[in-house]
Amino acid sequence: MDKFMEAAIDEARSGSSDGGIPIGSVLVRDDTIIGKGHNLRVQEDDPMAHAEISCLRDAGRIGNYRGSILYSTLMPCYLCAGAVVQFGIKKVIVGESRTFPGAKEFMESHGVEVVDLDLDECVAMMEDFIRSNPELWNEDIGE
Amino acid sequence: MDKFMEAAIDEARSGSSDGGIPIGSVLVRDDTIIGKGHNLRVQEDDPMAHAEISCLRDAGRIGNYRGSILYSTLMPCYLCAGAVVQFGIKKVIVGESRTFPGAKEFMESHGVEVVDLDLDECVAMMEDFIRSNPELWNEDIGE
Repeated sequence: MDKFMEAAIDEARSGSSDGGIPIGSVLVRDDTIIGKGHNLRVQEDDPMAHAEISCLRDAGRIGNYRGSILYSTLMPCYLCAGAVVQFGIKKVIVGESRTFPGAKEFMESHGVEVVDLDLDECVAMMEDFIRSNPELWNEDIGE
Repeated sequence: MDKFMEAAIDEARSGSSDGGIPIGSVLVRDDTIIGKGHNLRVQEDDPMAHAEISCLRDAGRIGNYRGSILYSTLMPCYLCAGAVVQFGIKKVIVGESRTFPGAKEFMESHGVEVVDLDLDECVAMMEDFIRSNPELWNEDIGE
């Protein structure tokens, strides 16, 4: 598998092992990971700390996002897709969108290339989580 | 002036006095402020800490956002508008959109009521800031 998606999955599993929501993300530029993170809603009581937001926070003030690629184990929601569009990230690679459709069309309508790897491993991780924690999952996506 | 917009402006001025970007936000429900914040890009080196994101983080895990109103001194960008749409905030009241058009149509297309108070005080605050800190402003909006 793509080594960067592997890193995003590692982030998701790290979050899960801390009792958090198993979604991970890495930001890549020049074939190097420049930011990584996972969902921290539970760990930090932070409803804005979706995986992609944590990852972009970790990358810090990089000035611009030209040439960067955002990886996420799950299709970004509107919050995270909004960050992608606002900061000019032009490519997003996701692990899956079967458990959550996210905001793919919104990103594409703003010129973002979205690649869905549709990985069984990512689907299983989310299905297990949603089955065990439906209320937490609904909270995370605002439902 | 609306007391909640006054509170958002106070947040903006508080951020500015710390050397930060002068944008403030409050979240209101049942005529009470339940979250407040300002842009913290400079103060915390956090590129995701737009005023509205800081405000929603401050409000914490409130479960759902029904009946809440988000105030911001400036029209939300796609990042912050994405949060509004994802979490089901149905009304946004802004100080102005002359200095930055933001993502008004995006929010409206998702059923959000957006009220633009078009306040000279908010315009002046942003114009002064942008004139003095054009690079910082471009960084904040990803340009």
